[in-house]
Amino acid sequence: MRQAGRFLPEYRALREQHGFLELCKTPALAAEVTLLPIRRFPVDAAILFADILLILEPMGVGLEFAQGDGPVIHRPVRSAADVDALARVPAAEGTPFVFETIRHAQALLAGEVPLVGFAGAPFTLASYAVEGGGSRNYAETKKLMYGDARTWHRLMERLTEATVEYLQAQVSAGVDALQLFDSWVGCLSPDDYRAYVLPHMRTLFEALASSGVPVVHFGTGTATLLELMREAGGDVIGLDWRVDLADAWARLGAGVAVQGNFDPVALLASPDEIRRRVQRILDQAGGRPGHIFNLGHGVLPETPPEHVAALVDAVHELSAVR
Amino acid sequence: MRQAGRFLPEYRALREQHGFLELCKTPALAAEVTLLPIRRFPVDAAILFADILLILEPMGVGLEFAQGDGPVIHRPVRSAADVDALARVPAAEGTPFVFETIRHAQALLAGEVPLVGFAGAPFTLASYAVEGGGSRNYAETKKLMYGDARTWHRLMERLTEATVEYLQAQVSAGVDALQLFDSWVGCLSPDDYRAYVLPHMRTLFEALASSGVPVVHFGTGTATLLELMREAGGDVIGLDWRVDLADAWARLGAGVAVQGNFDPVALLASPDEIRRRVQRILDQAGGRPGHIFNLGHGVLPETPPEHVAALVDAVHELSAVR
Repeated sequence: MRQAGRFLPEYRALREQHGFLELCKTPALAAEVTLLPIRRFPVDAAILFADILLILEPMGVGLEFAQGDGPVIHRPVRSAADVDALARVPAAEGTPFVFETIRHAQALLAGEVPLVGFAGAPFTLASYAVEGGGSRNYAETKKLMYGDARTWHRLMERLTEATVEYLQAQVSAGVDALQLFDSWVGCLSPDDYRAYVLPHMRTLFEALASSGVPVVHFGTGTATLLELMREAGGDVIGLDWRVDLADAWARLGAGVAVQGNFDPVALLASPDEIRRRVQRILDQAGGRPGHIFNLGHGVLPETPPEHVAALVDAVHELSAVR
Repeated sequence: MRQAGRFLPEYRALREQHGFLELCKTPALAAEVTLLPIRRFPVDAAILFADILLILEPMGVGLEFAQGDGPVIHRPVRSAADVDALARVPAAEGTPFVFETIRHAQALLAGEVPLVGFAGAPFTLASYAVEGGGSRNYAETKKLMYGDARTWHRLMERLTEATVEYLQAQVSAGVDALQLFDSWVGCLSPDDYRAYVLPHMRTLFEALASSGVPVVHFGTGTATLLELMREAGGDVIGLDWRVDLADAWARLGAGVAVQGNFDPVALLASPDEIRRRVQRILDQAGGRPGHIFNLGHGVLPETPPEHVAALVDAVHELSAVR
């Protein structure tokens, strides 16, 4: 969860030299960034340095990362004509640097820890594409969904197809696991998730089933969507900090792994408090196999790196005791 | 839920003449605004025109409503000394215009519909006071909570005391019901709610028990907090659109009323879609007494007033059929 990101001084130093998209598109640098957290902390996996929106750029929506303002999409997708106008570019041509970064990073990692690839899930991608950037209420997204379901589903189909191809290419390039970020799907009611998102997610997970790598299905604010997310698919379901891990896992059933649950904001607390919170999550997981300790969402830029070190140490020490 | 607000052209016309705080502090105008939606729609209650942050201003935090940027608190409260420095001003002196507005509005309403008063709940007030305005992650709030629990609880006690006095004065001035807005409490885990919020909410509801008016306990993103919110108190529990009304009510138990559940963004959809969604909520409520139809959060400024009219009509027609 942004373990290679702005909270690391060595990352900020690189960003002084290079724009964000430039870093993503320069495999030697992106692979270097992928390994930054591995060199600093004894984490158990490396996460590909990339962005969920990279896949949208070759579709022609006009992606830009404006300084300090988050992503901007200059040509939002809000009509059937807009969806039809999305360019169909093979992943190998649209985002070759992502697959190149994976190959570089795997060479540098040399088997030390597994490498996790990822993509945005179609709903979350669609929300950026329709809104033209981040959003608070997802008003344009829901307007399209409720007002023109046919166009909505066509957009979701296009994004699902592109995402399947993109992730399969990541697996071919060598990632050991995949994560689907449906970061903002928690703005939907269960009924809306069922009608507007679930069928596409099912298609996506079915297509990835033959990839041979485990897939994590992640979201935030999903307390009422967990059963439906499980129904959609994924070997691991991501949990944010708003749910009790034990409750949530009981609802999901024993046949699925879970990940997450640590509030990223709690990394701003003292190492003692961090340790206490790690213990509570481990207690809730009860030592059962299939629990991946992780944050419930991304590391905040103002997080002290020593606190991340304290978290990683606490997880290793306290889970070894069990 | 902001039924007197920016979506109404007559409100926007008034705002061209008057600043937001000026409107709140001029009882004749604030009472007029309170009645605007009553004159346009056959709604079943009027909501006091005010802001949850008005109570903070006499404490000396430097409240300002900056044009387009939302509220700003110029002197955020982040230490024990900051909490001690908060001025203790009796409600009658700190916010006399609120109580005057209530008297004016009740005179204008002349018993036509009841008048609902309100306040921000202590956690939500504290989040603004600590952050210095709105927030995405509540990082400063949680830092204080996790880093200096003693100061956090002292701040919550001060806000609880002030809120009790403020709401009792609203009842004395003539409101028929009260609503507590814990709008942002959904950023907390159930454990954190129990430790840092619940005791203060219980104190608050106990103090209001003798007020003789029903109290609504509102929040958003509270899917995992509902049982704890009920434990804290309130005659009515607010539900946002992320929960199934029937599920949520079953979890809360039969002894409490519920309110809300309509996604405010769905007011941007067509009147037909609005009607369909009203029907679904009414079906879930199953005609049981104790369901107050409402939005799950505030009306968005871009909402067409005709769509609000369609909602109100649909609620009346479809619930009369039962």
